[in-house]
Amino acid sequence: MKIVIVGGVAGGASAAARARRLMEDAEIVVFERGEHISYANCGLPYHVGNVIPDEDDLLVQTVKGMSRRFRLDIRTNSEVTAIHRDRRTVSVHDRKNGRTYEESYDRLILSPGARPFVPPLPGADLKGVYTLRTIPDAAAIKAKVDAGGVKRAVVVGAGFIGVELAENLQARGVEVTLEEGADQVLPPLDSDMARLIETELEKNGVRLILGSSLQSIEKTASGLAVTAGDHAPIEADLVALCIGVRPETELAKAAGLRLGFKDSIWTDSHQRTSDPHIYAVGDAVQTWNLLDGKETLLALAGPANRQGRLAAGAIAGLPHAFPGVAGSSVVKVFGLTAAATGMSEKALLRENVPYEKVYVQPLDHAGYYPGARQMTLKLLFSPVSRRVLGAQAVGPEGIDKRIDVIAAALQLGATVDQLSQLELCYAPPYGSAKDPVNVAGFVAVNVLDGLSRQIHWHDIGCLPENALLLDVRTPAEYEAGHIEGAKLFPLDNLRETLEELPKDRPTVVYCKVGLRGYLAERILVQHGFTDVYNLAGGYQLYEGVRGATVPDLPIDCLGYARS
Amino acid sequence: MKIVIVGGVAGGASAAARARRLMEDAEIVVFERGEHISYANCGLPYHVGNVIPDEDDLLVQTVKGMSRRFRLDIRTNSEVTAIHRDRRTVSVHDRKNGRTYEESYDRLILSPGARPFVPPLPGADLKGVYTLRTIPDAAAIKAKVDAGGVKRAVVVGAGFIGVELAENLQARGVEVTLEEGADQVLPPLDSDMARLIETELEKNGVRLILGSSLQSIEKTASGLAVTAGDHAPIEADLVALCIGVRPETELAKAAGLRLGFKDSIWTDSHQRTSDPHIYAVGDAVQTWNLLDGKETLLALAGPANRQGRLAAGAIAGLPHAFPGVAGSSVVKVFGLTAAATGMSEKALLRENVPYEKVYVQPLDHAGYYPGARQMTLKLLFSPVSRRVLGAQAVGPEGIDKRIDVIAAALQLGATVDQLSQLELCYAPPYGSAKDPVNVAGFVAVNVLDGLSRQIHWHDIGCLPENALLLDVRTPAEYEAGHIEGAKLFPLDNLRETLEELPKDRPTVVYCKVGLRGYLAERILVQHGFTDVYNLAGGYQLYEGVRGATVPDLPIDCLGYARS
Repeated sequence: MKIVIVGGVAGGASAAARARRLMEDAEIVVFERGEHISYANCGLPYHVGNVIPDEDDLLVQTVKGMSRRFRLDIRTNSEVTAIHRDRRTVSVHDRKNGRTYEESYDRLILSPGARPFVPPLPGADLKGVYTLRTIPDAAAIKAKVDAGGVKRAVVVGAGFIGVELAENLQARGVEVTLEEGADQVLPPLDSDMARLIETELEKNGVRLILGSSLQSIEKTASGLAVTAGDHAPIEADLVALCIGVRPETELAKAAGLRLGFKDSIWTDSHQRTSDPHIYAVGDAVQTWNLLDGKETLLALAGPANRQGRLAAGAIAGLPHAFPGVAGSSVVKVFGLTAAATGMSEKALLRENVPYEKVYVQPLDHAGYYPGARQMTLKLLFSPVSRRVLGAQAVGPEGIDKRIDVIAAALQLGATVDQLSQLELCYAPPYGSAKDPVNVAGFVAVNVLDGLSRQIHWHDIGCLPENALLLDVRTPAEYEAGHIEGAKLFPLDNLRETLEELPKDRPTVVYCKVGLRGYLAERILVQHGFTDVYNLAGGYQLYEGVRGATVPDLPIDCLGYARS
Repeated sequence: MKIVIVGGVAGGASAAARARRLMEDAEIVVFERGEHISYANCGLPYHVGNVIPDEDDLLVQTVKGMSRRFRLDIRTNSEVTAIHRDRRTVSVHDRKNGRTYEESYDRLILSPGARPFVPPLPGADLKGVYTLRTIPDAAAIKAKVDAGGVKRAVVVGAGFIGVELAENLQARGVEVTLEEGADQVLPPLDSDMARLIETELEKNGVRLILGSSLQSIEKTASGLAVTAGDHAPIEADLVALCIGVRPETELAKAAGLRLGFKDSIWTDSHQRTSDPHIYAVGDAVQTWNLLDGKETLLALAGPANRQGRLAAGAIAGLPHAFPGVAGSSVVKVFGLTAAATGMSEKALLRENVPYEKVYVQPLDHAGYYPGARQMTLKLLFSPVSRRVLGAQAVGPEGIDKRIDVIAAALQLGATVDQLSQLELCYAPPYGSAKDPVNVAGFVAVNVLDGLSRQIHWHDIGCLPENALLLDVRTPAEYEAGHIEGAKLFPLDNLRETLEELPKDRPTVVYCKVGLRGYLAERILVQHGFTDVYNLAGGYQLYEGVRGATVPDLPIDCLGYARS
């Protein structure tokens, strides 16, 4: 058996190692276009920021070490330029000596990855304009910063890499503008949750320009000038294009392999392409959303590594299959963490999937133990199947844990009822007797059980004229800031002041985070108020997401809340 | 509807609040024997340690605040002394004024909790001997330490509370001896994992006496002397009995309610006792293991709170049921965290459930990002259904997250195959592309697929005489310490030195953590070696668990490994 692997990072490296473990006799050849194999792509922004000062630390495996241990024939600086499916060979261009030759295979594993998207705009190819995908990319940006030549930088694109790079440049004393064509940072999040991160970026001195597409980059006397939307040109010494990646599928396309979503490589769940001798893994392949089965792309290291492992297993005859993706992701942004799993609200709306949502803002661990910090957690679920559809969280502590738990639950088909009853570890330094995950489940179950009817931050602007808006917090909280038009009816006196209120008007209650609002709602409903709503997430969320884009809902406000 | 609740902490408080939210019209009376309701039981050791210096911070709810908000009739210092099921009343003894009266109910919720077990041994009632269950208990211990009167303490019982109290006393400058009748600390863990915590306790100056039952406590000239097993008496200024708790079921028993496991109160999954008008929740009730359905007790705050909520819901007609318990728990021990979920190995052996186990020792986050720390994770699973049966982890970082994810997976019926494919959040500060949970899954699947045959640390002592023991680490690692009788065959030269080895003898390979050992195993097997085993967890685990109790296996060593 001779296995040829195209691409030696993440999926390719995982495939090579697993192939050797399973097939000691196989001949395994790895072609890598670049200088390095198996490097830490996800660490590149932190190399720029000197958090990982030594470039060598980014090398998860070295060519020498991996070749020896796994008896691999690793050829770096070697670009595979064609696949000859008829005779089962690939053409390889040796970049060092310029030679091109053919190499045969019994099985071919494609792990070509994805390349940074560089828009065909004026100046995108100027000196001083970078992308960040490889170690040389990171080294080049770092060298320029190290040399002191970067006072101002523009990062174009506010996805994970863009946001991480912005933070790391800022940490190096660079004045950073983060420019994004969409109206929010971090596309896997919904606009409301992203708003919390945008505030953190701005608080830390990153200038944000959202909703403005890059127009051009020009050379000026002192450096570069970036024009986005109708904004005045932004002066910069360095521009980083972090606009996303595109699957590297030229090779597969030229070979006539079946293509999938957005020109990616199609595979079955064993990572086998339309040619039974060829497998493909990683950022270049189409995968599917495990919730709705729809085709998608997901350029993340976790799935790539697991796919590489599975492809080698499939070649060796193992039965294991890839289950699809949930889109679990996390990012550190200064003092906050943002994480998400499953489908976002905007994705659910786009796919026309019925959903409900709740927001909770619990502490990461018991409030009586020092250092407890509040988080914001948004849970999306089906009002039909009651299953968890997605979750997003932002906060200083405990975010990755809660989203990982919900990610596991979602992938295993959990309902919100099951979420509410999950028995998680509790001791004061780590959590609460009712974990944030349970609390989100409790609220979701209350909504589905009809115990609570919610309205959301984006409904406040379109309440009917006769609606009553009741702030059930304390007078001090009310005076420090409240929603316009709200009347103060503190929860702890509500039962005594009920008589002052009409029972037949749409009545919206709110508190700080939603809990007292829920208590008020329950009191009102059980005292005969016919049309009561609680503002999900309360005043804190309402204020926190100010400026977020209103989701594109089919029914507005109370009509929606009633549905 | 008049609801009477006996006990105002955890389950009782949760039941009261939920009952009010669901039944605004109900009359709700809460009887609490002590001074406080809804206090943070789990915070008590940290109050002693001055981590939570202010006693008031332990009060999650105050009587005044909770009475007002939830319109509850809370009567503290009020002990319910009898239940009169025939006329649906309880007898209440008012401890303040000595009066006893009857109170009627439509529905009764029992949340009496559990009391610390005080063994009927000489001196257990001496002055200076404490238990730790209530705020007054903690205050008394703290006052004595604050007053400078405690140089030496003996903590009897090394469960969660005992270990936490030992740490907190040590932090106050007290010389602590932790004495335990079992041969290990932290009973929810297996002896091997507990060994890692024992080392941490000893490293931090806590003296451990394991496997020695408390015999007596005597008054001496200078204080107290504790005798355990055949050890010399241990001098102490303070003795804390943390031997466990017993359900407070006298009331239920006297009322003729059906009792369950170990004299606990029996309930159905809606927390209803054998009397349809009486519910029971929390530490006093029997519950069941959600894995095997067997009856058990679990005195933890999480289940108690959820049961309280469910009991109120059931009274209000809601359909939700308690799913049983997984035994998820976590504890901080100096610089380490220990956590567990599901069944332990010793429980599986006791219940005669077929199982397999793997140990992995991955980093909590990407090794190339600063601060990565190694953990030890033990995964137990069924070789029949491939389902996850339990997990335990010990380490300085990321422990609670991994056990929570596995706890969720286990409760949702996940197989190790599903565990290996869970898509968890990855960014360098938080995890790895292959998360520790995935890695444990990978190893388990390899074992079930027959790709790896393991032996365990406790098998090394009983290898057959003709067995070969190969250390596949580097010469430097070997020289720094190796298993007696092991021969050095470094992995990276193994293929070249194979010829020196006989192929037909039982061959055990090991490395530092088990990965290189697995690679060596794969090489040997595929080169015709017929009987190869990898030492799970490698030399590091073997050394780390030195002194642990060997599990009571029905078949020894390779015979077991072969099964």
